[in-house]
Amino acid sequence: MNPLTHDPHMFGPLFTDETISAAFSSARFLSHFSAFERALAQALGEARVVSPEVSAAAVAAIDSFAADLDAIRAKVLTDGVPAPEYARQLKAHAGSDCAAAIHAGATSQDLVDTATVLALRGVNEELVNRLRAALAALDKLDGTFGATEMMGRTRMQAALPITVSDRIAGWKMPLAAHLERLEEIRPRIEQLQFGGAVGNRSATGAAKEAVAAQIAEALGLNNPPRAWHAMRDGMAEYAGWLSLVTGTLGKMGQDLCLMAQQGVDELRLSGGGSSSAMPHKQNPVLAEMLVTLARYNAVQLGGMHQALLHEQERSGAAWTLEWMILPAMAGATGKALLLAQDLLGSIERLGPAQ
Amino acid sequence: MNPLTHDPHMFGPLFTDETISAAFSSARFLSHFSAFERALAQALGEARVVSPEVSAAAVAAIDSFAADLDAIRAKVLTDGVPAPEYARQLKAHAGSDCAAAIHAGATSQDLVDTATVLALRGVNEELVNRLRAALAALDKLDGTFGATEMMGRTRMQAALPITVSDRIAGWKMPLAAHLERLEEIRPRIEQLQFGGAVGNRSATGAAKEAVAAQIAEALGLNNPPRAWHAMRDGMAEYAGWLSLVTGTLGKMGQDLCLMAQQGVDELRLSGGGSSSAMPHKQNPVLAEMLVTLARYNAVQLGGMHQALLHEQERSGAAWTLEWMILPAMAGATGKALLLAQDLLGSIERLGPAQ
Amino acid sequence: MNPLTHDPHMFGPLFTDETISAAFSSARFLSHFSAFERALAQALGEARVVSPEVSAAAVAAIDSFAADLDAIRAKVLTDGVPAPEYARQLKAHAGSDCAAAIHAGATSQDLVDTATVLALRGVNEELVNRLRAALAALDKLDGTFGATEMMGRTRMQAALPITVSDRIAGWKMPLAAHLERLEEIRPRIEQLQFGGAVGNRSATGAAKEAVAAQIAEALGLNNPPRAWHAMRDGMAEYAGWLSLVTGTLGKMGQDLCLMAQQGVDELRLSGGGSSSAMPHKQNPVLAEMLVTLARYNAVQLGGMHQALLHEQERSGAAWTLEWMILPAMAGATGKALLLAQDLLGSIERLGPAQ
Amino acid sequence: MNPLTHDPHMFGPLFTDETISAAFSSARFLSHFSAFERALAQALGEARVVSPEVSAAAVAAIDSFAADLDAIRAKVLTDGVPAPEYARQLKAHAGSDCAAAIHAGATSQDLVDTATVLALRGVNEELVNRLRAALAALDKLDGTFGATEMMGRTRMQAALPITVSDRIAGWKMPLAAHLERLEEIRPRIEQLQFGGAVGNRSATGAAKEAVAAQIAEALGLNNPPRAWHAMRDGMAEYAGWLSLVTGTLGKMGQDLCLMAQQGVDELRLSGGGSSSAMPHKQNPVLAEMLVTLARYNAVQLGGMHQALLHEQERSGAAWTLEWMILPAMAGATGKALLLAQDLLGSIERLGPAQ
Repeated sequence: MNPLTHDPHMFGPLFTDETISAAFSSARFLSHFSAFERALAQALGEARVVSPEVSAAAVAAIDSFAADLDAIRAKVLTDGVPAPEYARQLKAHAGSDCAAAIHAGATSQDLVDTATVLALRGVNEELVNRLRAALAALDKLDGTFGATEMMGRTRMQAALPITVSDRIAGWKMPLAAHLERLEEIRPRIEQLQFGGAVGNRSATGAAKEAVAAQIAEALGLNNPPRAWHAMRDGMAEYAGWLSLVTGTLGKMGQDLCLMAQQGVDELRLSGGGSSSAMPHKQNPVLAEMLVTLARYNAVQLGGMHQALLHEQERSGAAWTLEWMILPAMAGATGKALLLAQDLLGSIERLGPAQ
Repeated sequence: MNPLTHDPHMFGPLFTDETISAAFSSARFLSHFSAFERALAQALGEARVVSPEVSAAAVAAIDSFAADLDAIRAKVLTDGVPAPEYARQLKAHAGSDCAAAIHAGATSQDLVDTATVLALRGVNEELVNRLRAALAALDKLDGTFGATEMMGRTRMQAALPITVSDRIAGWKMPLAAHLERLEEIRPRIEQLQFGGAVGNRSATGAAKEAVAAQIAEALGLNNPPRAWHAMRDGMAEYAGWLSLVTGTLGKMGQDLCLMAQQGVDELRLSGGGSSSAMPHKQNPVLAEMLVTLARYNAVQLGGMHQALLHEQERSGAAWTLEWMILPAMAGATGKALLLAQDLLGSIERLGPAQ
Repeated sequence: MNPLTHDPHMFGPLFTDETISAAFSSARFLSHFSAFERALAQALGEARVVSPEVSAAAVAAIDSFAADLDAIRAKVLTDGVPAPEYARQLKAHAGSDCAAAIHAGATSQDLVDTATVLALRGVNEELVNRLRAALAALDKLDGTFGATEMMGRTRMQAALPITVSDRIAGWKMPLAAHLERLEEIRPRIEQLQFGGAVGNRSATGAAKEAVAAQIAEALGLNNPPRAWHAMRDGMAEYAGWLSLVTGTLGKMGQDLCLMAQQGVDELRLSGGGSSSAMPHKQNPVLAEMLVTLARYNAVQLGGMHQALLHEQERSGAAWTLEWMILPAMAGATGKALLLAQDLLGSIERLGPAQ
Repeated sequence: MNPLTHDPHMFGPLFTDETISAAFSSARFLSHFSAFERALAQALGEARVVSPEVSAAAVAAIDSFAADLDAIRAKVLTDGVPAPEYARQLKAHAGSDCAAAIHAGATSQDLVDTATVLALRGVNEELVNRLRAALAALDKLDGTFGATEMMGRTRMQAALPITVSDRIAGWKMPLAAHLERLEEIRPRIEQLQFGGAVGNRSATGAAKEAVAAQIAEALGLNNPPRAWHAMRDGMAEYAGWLSLVTGTLGKMGQDLCLMAQQGVDELRLSGGGSSSAMPHKQNPVLAEMLVTLARYNAVQLGGMHQALLHEQERSGAAWTLEWMILPAMAGATGKALLLAQDLLGSIERLGPAQ
């Protein structure tokens, strides 16, 4: 909840990533809620927990449902989560005939955690593309400037010559590794949450595993052996990955700021920020922003790990802490990748003038 | 930049504090920018850096100026801060006749840091009122339930009897101390930033101290001996104070969650959150939120202290990190105090049933 | 528990501050335990809770007591704190005749928190001296090099000229402010903890306030209106002060690292670290260490604020977290001040060569 | 550098893990330094960078070398790292005949980072064993108590019945996942660092890749395509894994503390900590310690991610920050696993009394 960074006109454009923001919007979450309920209603029918007719009626009801967002807004602070009022509205809309297939055996976590996971799947697809673009931009710079000799610097002191390619390698290799890491992590984060009131799926009876498998398949998610809503290791691990990405970009940004210094003169950028007092000064704003976003995510990560202490079958306190932190980290990571793209594209010279 | 917590319909109401948000809005910041420029134009006239006529013309120009927010929006990512474009527009609006009194000797930090300080002054006034209200609510509960005997608990184990008043004292005393702390801190945070391009006010010449004193007086701010824009100790100290407030409320919230447990039964709340799976279960949502907001601010505080490493005469990277964190901390603190008020007002019984 | 930084031969000297370490040693803590018990036994006599003879016998027993550290070591993991075994041994040593004045009405927190506070009093006296020495060293550098013109740098770019004195002011003013802050904070941290089992001093009966006042006076500590052992705001606030000190020194260290760069050449140091590969390279090791220690404390501070969520009448978990963090922060702060002293003393030129 | 938690007699046993401590001792690091130098000398011979005779003489010199720790101690604060003095001594010991094979083409990072990696390899082997033991202990408890019905609790309120097995599953599944994660991570962390002065192995000439491969093979480490000393993603990722482990154990500890409460009565432990004021009270000290260690590591992790901003070819500041944090995190993780083992072994009843 940062009114400054969200303001659309003044400071906001520094921080806003429209694509990532859209992934966490009300509209998208409602769409994920609906997809979950639809998959659940279908799965209950296929597993014969309810009749095909009830299942079909439920699906039709879900498809025709439009949530009353004002009513959700009015209840969320009482409930601590928007899901109960959403489920109440949907049940009222569906009526009693298909009630047995509406939110049946499900609970708030199932809606919110599954919706979050679906949001993160979209985020991940986007971040993969941006990581690849950043790597391509670095490859291009390497091709153009890599052979240039420059001074290697250790402890901020001139040491011995390296090539620009050596410097670039320190930015590229970790980014490539992050792509590999994400492949390992995605199956652990992009998985269905379906547990019911206390997480053991007991309200779904003997068909519970079949129902879970069906929902997962319908949503294109991994199906873990149990509901994971009180095991937040996937979320914390994923947050760590986000911070690894921004950390690498932050190292690159810091290096570029140091290269842009007068007296060092190893970087020429097109554009660059102006100053209200010195209009002709060119500031490496985007490089600085990469440092900012890296330090921001490094700080936030600690909060995601505090949230691992998720007591009993659900912690309202720890879960809510994730909502305050994880989408902000995803947004910072997305923005850093966008800025990196712009920054790398604006490099006119990397390494000393020849 | 957290799209989830900012969404006005779904999760937002859990986190949004309208009053604190308004303090950091574009509208308010523009108003503070204008107040700074106006005070500067007047001070330059009074100190005879410019003629009374130029000063008056500048004031009139400032008063009749309406910023083009779309143009600011379009430039902020290039400049890293909205101030240069604001100053450019204002100068263009004022024209050459009074140019000597428009943003003269000032720079982006002067606008943004002074505007931030003016925002924080409003925040502080609000937080003081809310702290007093929380103390009053605790006094009232103490009057009603304080004499009740309850079990003192150490290491989460029943120890020896205490009174409800003993427990309440552990919530009240720190809140009262926070009011005293804020009185000490306010003069260190509510102070004018006026330094010019590199912070030494040199562009204002011999009149620089007189001009600074005049601006500070006009804005009702403390006037420090030098520009503080590269000394961020006041900001970090203030962030620590915010986290002390939420920490105390978080301890109270955690205690109340523990008191609300079945088998402990030392708390009865009216209202309470519902569950989509168990509609009649009453959850101590507001108490949990106090825990969440306390842990959130504790995490953020580390970032404000990282930003103390503000290199040279201005760090774009460290300064921007403050924008990502401090308003969010102020918002979390304001919200925690609002929620505490609601929570304390909903207590129907504190201590065991008699 | 960091075996690397504690090793006395390899990495340890980088991090160890003998004076601060001694303040937290077993020997010093035992001495503080004894001072508390002695003051308690005397106060119980003066308040006639016990007879003068019993009080005198207890004092004599305390004075002649030598704790069995091996036995304490053997029990601390069972008890979670060394105090119960210490108190048991002391009681056994004193025997039944003066038992009424040995640890009577006291509990583990009273021993450990009061001992911690006495340790911090010694730390504070040392840190005040070191802060004054750092300020004196900066004054001396200002006298020698202050008038030199150098380039002011904003966003890591050359901006406009300043003087070396302008740069130094940004290091000095916050350090001076930290001395003022500590004066405000010391009365809130250097205060007696005396509460008994659940913190309400009830086991001491009607004389409890008189006894507390006597103990506080004997130990030279402030006497708060109630036991504060479950109100950790003083500890968290103090940790914030430690991090403000290292943050300012870290900014100075970072500035000095940037000034020492080839191409910038605004600093000449005597000594400087060597490299195993490039023996003649001079590294600004102490300046880098100031950055390290600042970032370390900034990170730790978040943990002290997490520990504000100290549940009920005592949280073993939150209290223990303070032990892991606060002494380390005090050590880092002490070390940073020592290194700053060495670093400032090694400056042969500040500002560009003339 | 925490003198309190390191004291061997008073507080130390709460935090010390002898096995992990030994992995980071001077003795072990010296042994790793020696192993690196030996492997380097051999590799230089095999790659014919030096003659077989020079290589053999160097190996013999390395084998007969005993470092002067006092001299290392005396130089570490000047150099910022113990390696230069170690290398100097070794070269002096070896004499000029085999100088071409002693520390040739290597630098401080190569020694310290490779030694750290070798230390972590030992730590990992130990942690894997302890994780398996924890899983076995949980399996045993599941076998004994798993079928018992208990109350599921969400938002700290009684919800619906679950089994003890359901609760245990929330502790076990993440621990099992952590073992899988470590398998993925180990190849990225247990890898040779060999780069020379500025990380590009240039001093080793055309044979550089062959030499690196030989050293890696001799040390049983992975051989990355380039020196990674300025790419700290492996270290930060590994720190995240450590905090995942303690986070899961912390959730278990917090659950057990809640189960041990009077009025809940779902846990009976043998042993348990005593109180100096209430000798018969049994405190769940080990369960609380798991909470403490989890919150500690969550805090520290942020510092490891700050250290990702490792500027240029080596950052003294960021590298040193890792030394302050990573061994402490490894120690906390090791200790948490030891305590978990003790805690699980002391459970006499899990779930309500029948």
